[in-house]
Amino acid sequence: MECHVPQPPEDREPIEHWPDRCEVEVRQFDGGQVSVRADRVIEETPIALVYNCVSHAVMLATPTDLIDFALGFSLTEGILRSADEMLDCDPVQVGDEGIEIRLSISGWRFAELKERRRTLSGKTGCGLCGVESLKAVAQPVRRVSSVCPLEPGAIVRALADLPSHQSLFRATGGGHAAAWVDVGGRVDLVREDVGRHNALDKLIGALHRRGFRPHEGFVICTSRASFEMVQKTMSAGIGLLVAVSAPTGAAVRLAGEVGMTLVGFARGERMLVYTHPEPILS
Amino acid sequence: MECHVPQPPEDREPIEHWPDRCEVEVRQFDGGQVSVRADRVIEETPIALVYNCVSHAVMLATPTDLIDFALGFSLTEGILRSADEMLDCDPVQVGDEGIEIRLSISGWRFAELKERRRTLSGKTGCGLCGVESLKAVAQPVRRVSSVCPLEPGAIVRALADLPSHQSLFRATGGGHAAAWVDVGGRVDLVREDVGRHNALDKLIGALHRRGFRPHEGFVICTSRASFEMVQKTMSAGIGLLVAVSAPTGAAVRLAGEVGMTLVGFARGERMLVYTHPEPILS
Repeated sequence: MECHVPQPPEDREPIEHWPDRCEVEVRQFDGGQVSVRADRVIEETPIALVYNCVSHAVMLATPTDLIDFALGFSLTEGILRSADEMLDCDPVQVGDEGIEIRLSISGWRFAELKERRRTLSGKTGCGLCGVESLKAVAQPVRRVSSVCPLEPGAIVRALADLPSHQSLFRATGGGHAAAWVDVGGRVDLVREDVGRHNALDKLIGALHRRGFRPHEGFVICTSRASFEMVQKTMSAGIGLLVAVSAPTGAAVRLAGEVGMTLVGFARGERMLVYTHPEPILS
Repeated sequence: MECHVPQPPEDREPIEHWPDRCEVEVRQFDGGQVSVRADRVIEETPIALVYNCVSHAVMLATPTDLIDFALGFSLTEGILRSADEMLDCDPVQVGDEGIEIRLSISGWRFAELKERRRTLSGKTGCGLCGVESLKAVAQPVRRVSSVCPLEPGAIVRALADLPSHQSLFRATGGGHAAAWVDVGGRVDLVREDVGRHNALDKLIGALHRRGFRPHEGFVICTSRASFEMVQKTMSAGIGLLVAVSAPTGAAVRLAGEVGMTLVGFARGERMLVYTHPEPILS
């Protein structure tokens, strides 16, 4: 099949022009002092994902890197299996209501999506994407690639460098980042969003658009490591997830099962390795 | 209608016995030192909400305070309008898959829920509860109660006291808390969960089960203030939301519109007031 995946923004006309932050007036209380000043806050917009003219889901997300987001979400939620199944992707403003990302996907995958939706007829999903009963929670478990051994100090160096890539967080104090880091600890690609799942979907979408080898790097997220963060990382075949905050029990069990190295509470020189420590120990 | 709302746990046999944490082995890296030790992590379990035998949604949540959670979710998502419309609520383990909370709700509300689900026929929702198109995002906007003026230093005192109520966070370093605080700054009720929406739903459910007057207190959440956090607080008629982290643009706009005081970055003696500062200024 010929690949019509939209190219990164530098190769085409910019079509994404929504603000990622806005300015508001705040009263700052500090001890007994009150002052009025301007403050920047991160934007959060309803974004609908529409596949072959059928609306599938609405997320609240920061309206940046929307093609990355659409591709990443489609892949990590199992709607698509490879980037070239996304034939076109067009984010458009819909009145004051929000943004629609209109995707055109391959006929096979759309037939599967319709079948999935037919099965769910009359049911709504919540919290987990399109999942309305317990049996449907678990995606197929898929073992991930073994990561190449990291250079000593790679995670520590990447953690120190990451804030310099978080321009939205620096401006607003809000939002999460997901970063792709090489085994030497060089931060290679960063995506930000008000939601940690969205940031990871944007990163995975961007990696698939550019091409990447899962065993040659790892993901850092500035959030906790929940079950869904491990599941999304697994779906991209990536073998090492570093979270700045706590993991959950379900995340540790899934990472253990699929062969993923899961690191939590990674701050400065200190980190806790919950599963498969080999790439870091060696 | 006679009220069959289940009473708080102290008044009935305990039916909630799922672990909220588990112990795992970790390797702690600290500079050049590696040590192996036990660590406790917060639990996260698929929990299905089943209304009158129809499965509606699955959330990943920490399996504590499940009756509070079910009632709070039902109210903040507009499935129920008052606590006495929940006629019964029974959380049960379903194999290894997770937990089902089986609710019995009033006939009127179930008819509405069925109608809502019929309208969504063949569609699935994601990210926003049961929402699959942009038009369905906004709940009805409802003005909140004006909060009684706070005593000086009330928020600062409550922030200082809150960690002593977060037993799950102290044990695991994970999860969010939502607290109900009186205008004097006394922390009155706290609920914890791996997810911030769930913690707030549990708190609101607990408040409705016990009875509360929205204008006599406020909510603190240990997370950011997103649109959905403001929307859930609004649905309970509560006029002041204090978040420890950043607000979003959409959250500030909604709080402004409904008359809610929204405080962000509340840490120690410092906080930023984004909307309606009157209850704090006076």
